[in-house]
Amino acid sequence: MAGLIEPRTLKGFRDYPPELMIPRERLMDKARVVFRSYGYVPIDTPALEYAEILLGKGGQETDKQLYRFQDHGGRDVALRFDLTVPFARFAAQHIGQLGTPFKRYHIGTVWRGENTQRGRYREFVQCDFDFIGTTANAADIEIALVIHDLLRSLGFERFRIHINNRKLLNGLLEESGLAGKTAELLIALDKLPKIGAEAVLAEMEAKAGVGREAGQRLLELTQTQGSNAEVLDQLEQRFGKNPTAADGLQRLRELLDVAVRAGVPEAMLQVDVSIARGLDYYTGTVYETFLTDLPGIGSVCSGGRYDNLASLYTKQVLPGVGASLGLDRLLAAMAELNLLPKESTAAPVLLVFFEPNRLAEYQRMARTLRAAGIGVDVYPEPKKIGTQLKYADHRGFRFALIAGPDEFAQDVWQIKDLRAGQSATVPSTEVVGYLLKALGETAAGC
Amino acid sequence: MAGLIEPRTLKGFRDYPPELMIPRERLMDKARVVFRSYGYVPIDTPALEYAEILLGKGGQETDKQLYRFQDHGGRDVALRFDLTVPFARFAAQHIGQLGTPFKRYHIGTVWRGENTQRGRYREFVQCDFDFIGTTANAADIEIALVIHDLLRSLGFERFRIHINNRKLLNGLLEESGLAGKTAELLIALDKLPKIGAEAVLAEMEAKAGVGREAGQRLLELTQTQGSNAEVLDQLEQRFGKNPTAADGLQRLRELLDVAVRAGVPEAMLQVDVSIARGLDYYTGTVYETFLTDLPGIGSVCSGGRYDNLASLYTKQVLPGVGASLGLDRLLAAMAELNLLPKESTAAPVLLVFFEPNRLAEYQRMARTLRAAGIGVDVYPEPKKIGTQLKYADHRGFRFALIAGPDEFAQDVWQIKDLRAGQSATVPSTEVVGYLLKALGETAAGC
Repeated sequence: MAGLIEPRTLKGFRDYPPELMIPRERLMDKARVVFRSYGYVPIDTPALEYAEILLGKGGQETDKQLYRFQDHGGRDVALRFDLTVPFARFAAQHIGQLGTPFKRYHIGTVWRGENTQRGRYREFVQCDFDFIGTTANAADIEIALVIHDLLRSLGFERFRIHINNRKLLNGLLEESGLAGKTAELLIALDKLPKIGAEAVLAEMEAKAGVGREAGQRLLELTQTQGSNAEVLDQLEQRFGKNPTAADGLQRLRELLDVAVRAGVPEAMLQVDVSIARGLDYYTGTVYETFLTDLPGIGSVCSGGRYDNLASLYTKQVLPGVGASLGLDRLLAAMAELNLLPKESTAAPVLLVFFEPNRLAEYQRMARTLRAAGIGVDVYPEPKKIGTQLKYADHRGFRFALIAGPDEFAQDVWQIKDLRAGQSATVPSTEVVGYLLKALGETAAGC
Repeated sequence: MAGLIEPRTLKGFRDYPPELMIPRERLMDKARVVFRSYGYVPIDTPALEYAEILLGKGGQETDKQLYRFQDHGGRDVALRFDLTVPFARFAAQHIGQLGTPFKRYHIGTVWRGENTQRGRYREFVQCDFDFIGTTANAADIEIALVIHDLLRSLGFERFRIHINNRKLLNGLLEESGLAGKTAELLIALDKLPKIGAEAVLAEMEAKAGVGREAGQRLLELTQTQGSNAEVLDQLEQRFGKNPTAADGLQRLRELLDVAVRAGVPEAMLQVDVSIARGLDYYTGTVYETFLTDLPGIGSVCSGGRYDNLASLYTKQVLPGVGASLGLDRLLAAMAELNLLPKESTAAPVLLVFFEPNRLAEYQRMARTLRAAGIGVDVYPEPKKIGTQLKYADHRGFRFALIAGPDEFAQDVWQIKDLRAGQSATVPSTEVVGYLLKALGETAAGC
């Protein structure tokens, strides 16, 4: 045989070994439970589509990042670079049969041939959820509730969902005599957290011809301080007569009112007039979500309302509202906040293979535990106990279950708590109960 | 704006709308629970790899099916066509850090530019699990247990895991004086269920020069009938003195003994000397799994033991044993056997939006139910009840929850059982309990 092929991955791509994949899979599991609990249904679309479909909406940047090639049939195809465009195509094709309103979630891999210098990957997972086919504010409110429940279910207690409404922003610009420059101003405004007030003012002047004073007034407006009620009241007083702004304000008020009465702590919702989220796409409510302890990582769940999802592919008008959960950012945050258990096993118990001729008894006990919902890894060879316990330690098992001649003679098992370093001798019939209790107490079940 | 872009998917690719994706996701969830309960850990690898890596092992058929192109950096890349080659590359790269034994599962999409005429898709999901770094028969036995538990957890009660051992086959050929023709004979033998005995005999003669009589004796051997013990005893008597065959027989005996004593019904395990499963790769135990009620769809879970997983990429010898669950075949089977609930909602309860100014109360009740684990979809607009119930019917909700002025005045809710067509009036405080009981009884919770 010729020489070995060097095992390696492409630049910008990575393997997920168990210590990365276990928490990632847990996070996706938990997100799915929340989505389903609201009646969002899963869909999937092909990774590969006609380039024409994927490029329909893209600007030049998207074009350059696209993995695009000719397939065996000479078709011009590409790997999807997000889940929004495929969802628009999917909706155009299937909404007649699905009916509206329609709520879906989609967890899927996307590919972008980006510059990897910023520590970005060229392959990553997106997690989108959308509520389409209705303009009702009830849908906007629900998206805020889902965002809240997602973060809580992932173990975060300290976060804030920042909400704004593009109509309020538009009305505010109209009243300030800046309506014709909305696009340029909002692009500049969106950069505030990144580049600071001075640079934003300079850009407003350069790109929109808005003088320093007018720019400053605008910045001040978007920085309106106080409780949610105070902010809304101040804006109402100043811009309430503008019908566009009034509509935005009313929808924000109702969102806060219903969400709080439905059980979301008001401290977790914050009216923030400075967030605009891009430009053409969003037309109403917009959301960004920040972790109180790690504001620097940016928004971990963002989205907004749009007027028409699939205008490139169908004449049917499909308004909707949705958001995207930043899985990788959240995993990074959870690692930094020590919310990720350090383990590389999916089962909490290692069953030590001690007596060569007792495999049936070992497997029988393992099956009994699994039937009770306790994950058990049976070591495959009767190696020295020290070797097996080293394996257990390396992988992060919680308990080791051991039986040798003495234990079989007495019909008992030794249960070793690998973190506490303590052992107990437990009758065979009580092993399930003992471990269920122990794992329940440490919340380390499977 | 110019004309619309026609929304369509590529030939051989398909969307998964909710009615396909809900059962597919449930199936993957259940498989993951089984894998984890045995201590198998998840991994993931990139969809895109260096073509050189993916082609390392392939024959010409694979080459032609590969989605292969040049990326932005001029690299020769391709989409993975299975999960075995990426796992071999992954193991070569990471096994030093992971340590052995190592057990992983991998559920991932693969792409093959196959002829679609046979109803095959060019994009599909594979679900592989492997136990590597040990030659111990305990690992082979565990794979049989995992296959059994997978099928049971998916709701199948009538199936058989056919097991054989390539060593037994090899010994049998050695004793029949056919050792030099193993490859050709096993290729022919493997086709028995598809092309029948006559064609197999013809092929044995044409490709291996094995006369009709010798071929027939071989066929008869692989068709040895009787209970597992009878088959093993017969083969032992005839070939037990051949060391290779004896080794295979001993491993099969131990597998049956331990699996049955660990709780697997013997009727679900069948020694089947006729299965060989391909050629070069497998070297020991081999598995195929057939549904008793749908034998025609072929094996739904297949695999076997191999001597060396990653020889193309590393000098480290990595023996192992594994199998692959046929997700799409199982979904087709479940549809045919009516094991799939017909529903296109992920939540069992629709909360009807009746009174425009009661959204907070509706969302509050919905959140209370969700906290108890009951999925609730709140209709977003106060449309006519008839419209909302039609939506509920179309989606397959189990219950509708309704409250109007009368109900709010009395602090009760109407609960409509949409399948039974009956209604009950239930105090607010008892709605959770009522629905938990009703859903528990029909096993339709979320």
